[in-house]
Amino acid sequence: MARILVINPNSSVAVTQGMDESLNVFRTVGGPEILSQCLLDAPIGIETQRDIDSVVLPLSQKIATEKADAYVIACFSDPGLALARETTDSLVLGVAESAYFTAVGLGRRFGVLSIGEGSIPRHARYIQSLGLTNWLAGDLSIKSHVADLTDFERSIDRIGAVGLRLRDEKQADVLILGCVGMSPYRAELERQTGLPVLDPTQAAVARAISLMALGCKPSF
Amino acid sequence: MARILVINPNSSVAVTQGMDESLNVFRTVGGPEILSQCLLDAPIGIETQRDIDSVVLPLSQKIATEKADAYVIACFSDPGLALARETTDSLVLGVAESAYFTAVGLGRRFGVLSIGEGSIPRHARYIQSLGLTNWLAGDLSIKSHVADLTDFERSIDRIGAVGLRLRDEKQADVLILGCVGMSPYRAELERQTGLPVLDPTQAAVARAISLMALGCKPSF
Amino acid sequence: MARILVINPNSSVAVTQGMDESLNVFRTVGGPEILSQCLLDAPIGIETQRDIDSVVLPLSQKIATEKADAYVIACFSDPGLALARETTDSLVLGVAESAYFTAVGLGRRFGVLSIGEGSIPRHARYIQSLGLTNWLAGDLSIKSHVADLTDFERSIDRIGAVGLRLRDEKQADVLILGCVGMSPYRAELERQTGLPVLDPTQAAVARAISLMALGCKPSF
Amino acid sequence: MARILVINPNSSVAVTQGMDESLNVFRTVGGPEILSQCLLDAPIGIETQRDIDSVVLPLSQKIATEKADAYVIACFSDPGLALARETTDSLVLGVAESAYFTAVGLGRRFGVLSIGEGSIPRHARYIQSLGLTNWLAGDLSIKSHVADLTDFERSIDRIGAVGLRLRDEKQADVLILGCVGMSPYRAELERQTGLPVLDPTQAAVARAISLMALGCKPSF
Amino acid sequence: MARILVINPNSSVAVTQGMDESLNVFRTVGGPEILSQCLLDAPIGIETQRDIDSVVLPLSQKIATEKADAYVIACFSDPGLALARETTDSLVLGVAESAYFTAVGLGRRFGVLSIGEGSIPRHARYIQSLGLTNWLAGDLSIKSHVADLTDFERSIDRIGAVGLRLRDEKQADVLILGCVGMSPYRAELERQTGLPVLDPTQAAVARAISLMALGCKPSF
Amino acid sequence: MARILVINPNSSVAVTQGMDESLNVFRTVGGPEILSQCLLDAPIGIETQRDIDSVVLPLSQKIATEKADAYVIACFSDPGLALARETTDSLVLGVAESAYFTAVGLGRRFGVLSIGEGSIPRHARYIQSLGLTNWLAGDLSIKSHVADLTDFERSIDRIGAVGLRLRDEKQADVLILGCVGMSPYRAELERQTGLPVLDPTQAAVARAISLMALGCKPSF
Repeated sequence: MARILVINPNSSVAVTQGMDESLNVFRTVGGPEILSQCLLDAPIGIETQRDIDSVVLPLSQKIATEKADAYVIACFSDPGLALARETTDSLVLGVAESAYFTAVGLGRRFGVLSIGEGSIPRHARYIQSLGLTNWLAGDLSIKSHVADLTDFERSIDRIGAVGLRLRDEKQADVLILGCVGMSPYRAELERQTGLPVLDPTQAAVARAISLMALGCKPSF
Repeated sequence: MARILVINPNSSVAVTQGMDESLNVFRTVGGPEILSQCLLDAPIGIETQRDIDSVVLPLSQKIATEKADAYVIACFSDPGLALARETTDSLVLGVAESAYFTAVGLGRRFGVLSIGEGSIPRHARYIQSLGLTNWLAGDLSIKSHVADLTDFERSIDRIGAVGLRLRDEKQADVLILGCVGMSPYRAELERQTGLPVLDPTQAAVARAISLMALGCKPSF
Repeated sequence: MARILVINPNSSVAVTQGMDESLNVFRTVGGPEILSQCLLDAPIGIETQRDIDSVVLPLSQKIATEKADAYVIACFSDPGLALARETTDSLVLGVAESAYFTAVGLGRRFGVLSIGEGSIPRHARYIQSLGLTNWLAGDLSIKSHVADLTDFERSIDRIGAVGLRLRDEKQADVLILGCVGMSPYRAELERQTGLPVLDPTQAAVARAISLMALGCKPSF
Repeated sequence: MARILVINPNSSVAVTQGMDESLNVFRTVGGPEILSQCLLDAPIGIETQRDIDSVVLPLSQKIATEKADAYVIACFSDPGLALARETTDSLVLGVAESAYFTAVGLGRRFGVLSIGEGSIPRHARYIQSLGLTNWLAGDLSIKSHVADLTDFERSIDRIGAVGLRLRDEKQADVLILGCVGMSPYRAELERQTGLPVLDPTQAAVARAISLMALGCKPSF
Repeated sequence: MARILVINPNSSVAVTQGMDESLNVFRTVGGPEILSQCLLDAPIGIETQRDIDSVVLPLSQKIATEKADAYVIACFSDPGLALARETTDSLVLGVAESAYFTAVGLGRRFGVLSIGEGSIPRHARYIQSLGLTNWLAGDLSIKSHVADLTDFERSIDRIGAVGLRLRDEKQADVLILGCVGMSPYRAELERQTGLPVLDPTQAAVARAISLMALGCKPSF
Repeated sequence: MARILVINPNSSVAVTQGMDESLNVFRTVGGPEILSQCLLDAPIGIETQRDIDSVVLPLSQKIATEKADAYVIACFSDPGLALARETTDSLVLGVAESAYFTAVGLGRRFGVLSIGEGSIPRHARYIQSLGLTNWLAGDLSIKSHVADLTDFERSIDRIGAVGLRLRDEKQADVLILGCVGMSPYRAELERQTGLPVLDPTQAAVARAISLMALGCKPSF
């Protein structure tokens, strides 16, 4: 039985649990084993460039020691993706790239809900490096922090409002949750906007299952 | 249990059987039921614009009468895709669009192996309508016919040679079989070129399974 | 004397008459004969994908039986254009592609006035397939139906208002009437907006006359 | 009766005569009067940037004094086009822009036959300023001079060879004669390559007639 | 010691003096000699296409007679840049191209403050000819004239307001002063917007010093 | 006096010395102090993704402790550029981005000479993230190693041959040395190809001096 290891490179147990629950939809009889882990000694949330760069080597180390058929790096900055691919011959996917590639097949222009303003230029550079700038309708911040996402009542209004702006002002026809920790908000955001909403970790696990069946690995 | 109906809109039983065999990889315990059918009274192969346009209404008619959770239109021209989506609320995917979208996540530039010269401008227009022209490394024809694909020995040399030209002259790093009937050649082409090769019907079924799990439908 | 056959693939006599009147500007001594016909048994207006796909084969049939030096398919969805070009060696032009190509030579960004919301994504796909997405300023709907266009007083306010929005909010510097039936509104829309306004059927007939003089046919 | 004044901004009578003969196809009963003139005291051929810049003010002066409904600037560098449009309210078209815009509606990628190497980067900049770089298959020089074009036997081999290279090496599906003086070679080049070949002066006059009928002027 | 000649191709002494003062930042011990001159008999401001085209030959004449290691054409229309490069083997830079190229390395999207509405389409064409359209956030006019720039109090409010609109409505993260005469407003505009502001003449002189040190000249 | 600290993030003294010599051109009386340092305990050459990622934190640490007005990260992978910009308020430039941005202002399409095949896809992704893919003529490898660059006689033939291929097969009109260690080959490569050749460290120092004079910092 194939094994998919989903690594949340921050150390938040709450975020990891919310993420893991969203993956139950892929846990079928005869389907792959899907494990979720966080990275001990990592920051509680990945919000700055220092946070991103500080987990690159530990992530690679973890991948080198824990065997799996596919690894998913479950942070929307896709930290250490290139090094991880250099580290193992198994399939390695980032959740952000997976969300973007899946969105391209679903609509004409996707909108991203970011946690904070600071990550928007980073996303823009990354989307451009993937050649997908034309698909980006807009990227708007909920002006919050990863840690605050654990309070559903406090965050759902901001998330809903930003989703509606992406739909109505930016003409997005697909939405992407720009943080692994937003996973619990997906259903309600779909209900409020009527648009398909991609949870990046789900998108990555779905892509991992697809690519394992097709027997293909990304070459970049 | 979810049901995926894969419709080959030509009437070739041999092509439909080869295609169906390639889908065994998705038939798992607990997985969806995957049925392959061809369209009676359709042309033996879809090679001209008339062939394409003549199956649009019959395909829609078949979708209206045969219930499924997802439909795959298994002809590399994606005939009648827009009408099929207007006809049913179920998921409908074309094999060409699915191959292109999957390739975008696998490499920098994909190469297409076409059956005949005549389909190359059609592919170019379609790829452009999807906004993926920058990903197209090249599209080269094996100068053959759908019917001749049933003779493996006769066709494998041409297919291998064209695959190598796409890799070496056009710098493709992913290959796409530009006809549902090329399905039996995938493994050997991967061996000869060392590149990932996408069979479009497999790509579409994998995408159907993904999108059903994610609960999303294309909005175009 | 050259003969241009302009085929409105819906069955509305009123729309065909309005369209025909707009072509008088091309009827000169020594100029080509320009005939307008509608397609009997076709829908009264082409608004859904089913409408579009249902006229493809009849249009090809009509072209095969009625001789002309040039055919113009006078519906803004350009239904059956590829098949028509496969059917005859004469020149065949669509009105939408002709309006788009003409607009490219007139301004930096064109705006489209669509009949209904549903046709906007179709136009977007088509414009992208022609490689002209960068020229599209915007596509706004008058939220009406082909049949209602026959009541000038009822529609002119909506058409004027949408034209002004395309000019002022979307920075269009050329406008395109997104339906053959909008032909009678061209002069008033030009007056209200001060922008050049293209009637697609006029654009196609002008292009047909040009290309016949130049001795060239489109190769796509 | 409408009057189109075609101004060759060099002083070569031979080039002007060859150009004028190519315009006979537009001289019909009831059609516009088409006059060809060259610019006295201008260089014998426009090959350097100095040649181009030196005719800008004289061209504007000529347009200010000779009345016409439409002016065509008949040099493939479109010298002084912006100033000419500032000078008169009549329609003013350049032959290069007209050839490019017409080619966009005829094929996927056009090839240009230039007189000398020096004009290739100029064409590239101009094509880019029009937003048409994606349509340029290639621009190859016949390594000659305007004056040598008057010797048909001497130049046809070079022109044919370059046309074939544009078709076979650069995948052009439409060819553009990159000099007004190449007008007499059009028919033979079409015969040798089997591709549509645009003579820029013909393209501009055809466009002038179209735009006068449509009642539109370029806004750039 | 290297000599940079900065030529303001209008005849305004006030504009030339303001510009010259902005260049003091480059006048260091051991650095190049930097001279500012205006063009006698030129228009007082370059605002129309006729103004632009009328200074092309005189500028070339001046460059041919005044020796320098580098020439800067100090008008935001970069008049006569191509001819100047044909005229001399020394380095020749335009201030507009220099501002645009410098801005590309500073932010994701630049905003331009134009003097009048009429220059906006000219800028758009030029930016497109350089292949930089994707970097243009917006170009807004202060609806003024070159001559009025000498009254600081009268113009600073307009300039500040337009800068803020470029930042807030157009998402520009770098601003470009779209006229050599706006030089005195740079510091205050930076203070009001918090964005980097490029004075085009400064950008060109900085680039001239860089390229002389690197020993490179533009090849277009 | 301003201080520019150029940090070679590998530990090769020979490479650092060659690089430092190339910077003498910027050391003028009254000009900035330019210091070159390597990173102790770093790899001898940066060739793999692991090499790149392993120097990110040490580089940031060095920048935090050594004061300067501008920092140049002197490795063609621009490792840790984003983190360095987060670490200090001083100007921080990468040599690769500086070479690319400088090349954009020099020619239509630049060619890159890479040390090994493995870095070509990395360069492609980075160039795309900067939005400069259209300027890339080609990237060809000399199939060598950083360490081998110290033997001039052994490497100059390969470097010359690759430079000529970039010029003749890929139509590059500017060349970029794709490794800091290629600095000593610049003059000879310019001689052999007749094209401008950019040494990335020189390009970055020139840009640092320019931006310090202009008082601007990149906002990405």
